[in-house]
Amino acid sequence: MFHNSQIEDCNPRKAVVLLSGGLDSATTLAIAQEQQFVCYCLTVMYGQRHAVEIEASKTVANSMGATEHRFLDVDLRKIGGSALTDDFEVPKDSANNAGIPITYVPARNTIMLSLALAYAEVVGAQDIFVGVNAVDYSGYPDCRPEYISAFQTMAQLATKAGVEGRTMSIHAPLMDWSKPRIIHEGLKLGVDYALTHSCYDPSATGKPCQHCDSCLIRIAAFAELGITDPALIQSEETP
Amino acid sequence: MFHNSQIEDCNPRKAVVLLSGGLDSATTLAIAQEQQFVCYCLTVMYGQRHAVEIEASKTVANSMGATEHRFLDVDLRKIGGSALTDDFEVPKDSANNAGIPITYVPARNTIMLSLALAYAEVVGAQDIFVGVNAVDYSGYPDCRPEYISAFQTMAQLATKAGVEGRTMSIHAPLMDWSKPRIIHEGLKLGVDYALTHSCYDPSATGKPCQHCDSCLIRIAAFAELGITDPALIQSEETP
Repeated sequence: MFHNSQIEDCNPRKAVVLLSGGLDSATTLAIAQEQQFVCYCLTVMYGQRHAVEIEASKTVANSMGATEHRFLDVDLRKIGGSALTDDFEVPKDSANNAGIPITYVPARNTIMLSLALAYAEVVGAQDIFVGVNAVDYSGYPDCRPEYISAFQTMAQLATKAGVEGRTMSIHAPLMDWSKPRIIHEGLKLGVDYALTHSCYDPSATGKPCQHCDSCLIRIAAFAELGITDPALIQSEETP
Repeated sequence: MFHNSQIEDCNPRKAVVLLSGGLDSATTLAIAQEQQFVCYCLTVMYGQRHAVEIEASKTVANSMGATEHRFLDVDLRKIGGSALTDDFEVPKDSANNAGIPITYVPARNTIMLSLALAYAEVVGAQDIFVGVNAVDYSGYPDCRPEYISAFQTMAQLATKAGVEGRTMSIHAPLMDWSKPRIIHEGLKLGVDYALTHSCYDPSATGKPCQHCDSCLIRIAAFAELGITDPALIQSEETP
């Protein structure tokens, strides 16, 4: 819709969207598109075990018609410190314990937002969308609104755009939403959750474990909405 | 000096030091050591042309007795936007033009500091040293004191350390120093500048081009001090 040069007053805004292939980032992409942003997706591969998420991110970006989708490798295993990148056991069937979980990846959102900021500078975007959420991930310091706000202030000072007086905005539209609300809003926007992947510890064939924190939160959210998770149906059909 | 378990009141502070192999970061490491920090060096390989800098960083870290030295790859060529990572010509014999130079790498310091922050969290350091300088690099938005200060505020909110009430500090000791002052202070601390490498566009054998901005600034600084750059002497001796 933005390719018709006849439409002179059409001035599409570009946004970089961090896309993991999970439920939250797919919903975030749908929200950015709903707000008429032309979306440049970025998937950061930080040496996580669940490479299946990366495949999911490709399917999500393609099916949702992202303008561009880039991948960046940062092998955080070289510095360690998380059950998601190291050889720690991913906790199973644990209640949502207090404190910072073992699945917390040090400075993960800061690294991902920094890479998104570089990408935004290159494509001339002043908006970055990220699916962070303070409700389900209350133990993660970098999932809080005050953190996002501080990143935005820093981003403004870090960039050519900021120096030239343009505003860099970090959008975290899911920040205060419960998981059922995220899914509910995403379904309204047409997100196909069968394409998304959330498990921290999938099987070799990519099936969700259904016992890690991420799976438990996702299962409970779909149950609350009275819907069966389409990704679970699809995964059961796969041999 | 910190390995004697008899010394009970010895409580060394750890610092992460961003080390490029250049003159500024070698001086920064010397300053961190002078301040009694136990130094964990991090070299970020962002797809820059001058891989010779990475070799220099190894020599610098080894010769200065860093406790640990890690390397992280982030291939910023995948997003582009700089003469240092793309196929742009590196400008030669140019005066220090106004505006943001073509050698500016989008969000470079933000990405490097974010990775340093992750490393700091893993090793339990609350201090990060970076050799940014506002004097010679006035065109770079992410080399200004207000940027460093905003990064520090964000880092405090981003990390486990911050949540637990510990202070994350970003040290940029060279911020206001001229290049001759940096070299002068480094020499007092015993930095061997023959081991460092600053050129943006070295020859295949690693010789500095002596014409890029970085070389010109370095040559002028040594000249101002009435010293011949030891790296230049060494490079002339190399066939």
